[in-house]
Amino acid sequence: MSGETTITVVGNLTDDPDLRFTPSGTAVANFRIASTPRQLDRQSGEWRDGEPLFLSCHIWRDAAENVAESLKRGARVIVTGRLRQRSYETREGEKRTVIELEADEVGPSLRYARAKVMKLTRTGAAPSGAMAPVVGGGSADDPFSVPATVGALAGTAADDKPPF
Amino acid sequence: MSGETTITVVGNLTDDPDLRFTPSGTAVANFRIASTPRQLDRQSGEWRDGEPLFLSCHIWRDAAENVAESLKRGARVIVTGRLRQRSYETREGEKRTVIELEADEVGPSLRYARAKVMKLTRTGAAPSGAMAPVVGGGSADDPFSVPATVGALAGTAADDKPPF
Amino acid sequence: MSGETTITVVGNLTDDPDLRFTPSGTAVANFRIASTPRQLDRQSGEWRDGEPLFLSCHIWRDAAENVAESLKRGARVIVTGRLRQRSYETREGEKRTVIELEADEVGPSLRYARAKVMKLTRTGAAPSGAMAPVVGGGSADDPFSVPATVGALAGTAADDKPPF
Amino acid sequence: MSGETTITVVGNLTDDPDLRFTPSGTAVANFRIASTPRQLDRQSGEWRDGEPLFLSCHIWRDAAENVAESLKRGARVIVTGRLRQRSYETREGEKRTVIELEADEVGPSLRYARAKVMKLTRTGAAPSGAMAPVVGGGSADDPFSVPATVGALAGTAADDKPPF
Repeated sequence: MSGETTITVVGNLTDDPDLRFTPSGTAVANFRIASTPRQLDRQSGEWRDGEPLFLSCHIWRDAAENVAESLKRGARVIVTGRLRQRSYETREGEKRTVIELEADEVGPSLRYARAKVMKLTRTGAAPSGAMAPVVGGGSADDPFSVPATVGALAGTAADDKPPF
Repeated sequence: MSGETTITVVGNLTDDPDLRFTPSGTAVANFRIASTPRQLDRQSGEWRDGEPLFLSCHIWRDAAENVAESLKRGARVIVTGRLRQRSYETREGEKRTVIELEADEVGPSLRYARAKVMKLTRTGAAPSGAMAPVVGGGSADDPFSVPATVGALAGTAADDKPPF
Repeated sequence: MSGETTITVVGNLTDDPDLRFTPSGTAVANFRIASTPRQLDRQSGEWRDGEPLFLSCHIWRDAAENVAESLKRGARVIVTGRLRQRSYETREGEKRTVIELEADEVGPSLRYARAKVMKLTRTGAAPSGAMAPVVGGGSADDPFSVPATVGALAGTAADDKPPF
Repeated sequence: MSGETTITVVGNLTDDPDLRFTPSGTAVANFRIASTPRQLDRQSGEWRDGEPLFLSCHIWRDAAENVAESLKRGARVIVTGRLRQRSYETREGEKRTVIELEADEVGPSLRYARAKVMKLTRTGAAPSGAMAPVVGGGSADDPFSVPATVGALAGTAADDKPPF
């Protein structure tokens, strides 16, 4: 794609991410973030919350599983991707359009949190899409040095329709 | 404001900008842009139009008048500003929320067009908000060297409610 | 390209754009913008200029000619594109790297200015790249209704090296 | 600040973050990221690496300590902040300017990695800046349920000079 509208949003997850799979087995994670700006009250000199912006986001494939595994409701996240419009019909037959964020990269913000990061790599021997954890500098008492079981992903068709 | 969601959109005006004034006289221009990404068809090697994104935008004060004066339906524009959410009630009493772009800067794209730019400056002697054109390097046969009449703006209250 | 670092900068041209042509005839316009943020002095309640950011930009092909034709030193512009790094050697043999903006879209900001926009379209009969002006709603006394002579562009090879 | 140039960069840390403290005790983390775009070779249909963009970044206060604690060389990160220019003199007395990213939010990308996130909150009883870990949904065998020792930060003066 060329000429897409890129955007970065920082906010908090309104719920746990919702992980689903297309019929062909491609993972997609749906989540919603609330981004609340702060406004300086020039009279009191204090910051106050402004109107929050709510945005529905989704991310595909391996990243979808990583997001679902790593992030919980309330987590402050950085999401960067492309703003898209989607049209649908309500049960009453009304046409509606929503603006959504197709995420390219999602990560927990380290502004008020720390994170233990575990890199995953595809293993050549495993089925397509399977991943094995790689622990950087893992020591004996590192709880992440015991490889977590990571389910193989069945497919990665780019044109899968979202199951939502 | 701090922590707002900034965004830049490039697209075409779906209509002429709509210029209005608040009761206290502050100008606001409303316009809608359609941003259409292009997708490379890897089989044919050709670019095809993707789904357009439609965004309602508004811009305030002097810039509102400049936008209304300079841009017409179909114009390709660059808009940069902050993504905002606004809630309202339909006549049927249904609550709806829309995502809009509060523009900080708007300009015609020079990708497929040229522009004759006329800088405006506030004149100290004139009523608040009145502007006089300043032509950079204007020559005798420069059509812009004859000052256009620019109406005085009555007010610039930052907290005016939008008249739409 | 995928995974490029997109950016939008608003600022003023430090000089007139510099239009050049590659040996194969592709146009490229180089220009530099100064973007000056403003800081609120919380004690005095006044805005003061912060440190300006200077960025070298370039844009290719038709847009390059449009930029060179439309914008002058001092013009406030909106530039959106991709941040890139370029390495070169000084005459003394020192290696240096600079960060530059490869512009996709450039336009004059309408914040403090108005613009007369003239759309250009490629003419089928003309040599590749030649453009003829199309005036929207041009009236008899419209100075733009007399087509400006727009030189044909000799080539549009995407991999031309910049002549600077 | 108003009118700053915001930017989001996705890339890999070229080294471990470098954590320092100003004389008054404010933490600042310096790190460098390499962002490598990918280019589609239309003849072979394969993606190839483009020229990487290297950007020096820094982040202040609590986030600085969180970044230093959480991220290692090679980590893929999302950084969002403001592009700034800084001037300095070399030992030879030459004046140089560099473009840097003053980060507002940094996080590990979940594209190829998973993360265990531990939220930190300031404890009212502790000295200014001290933080205590809060584990969301921590169970008995959760390695993070044993609070890590987090050093108190001595100060948060906004105008501290960077110690680099």
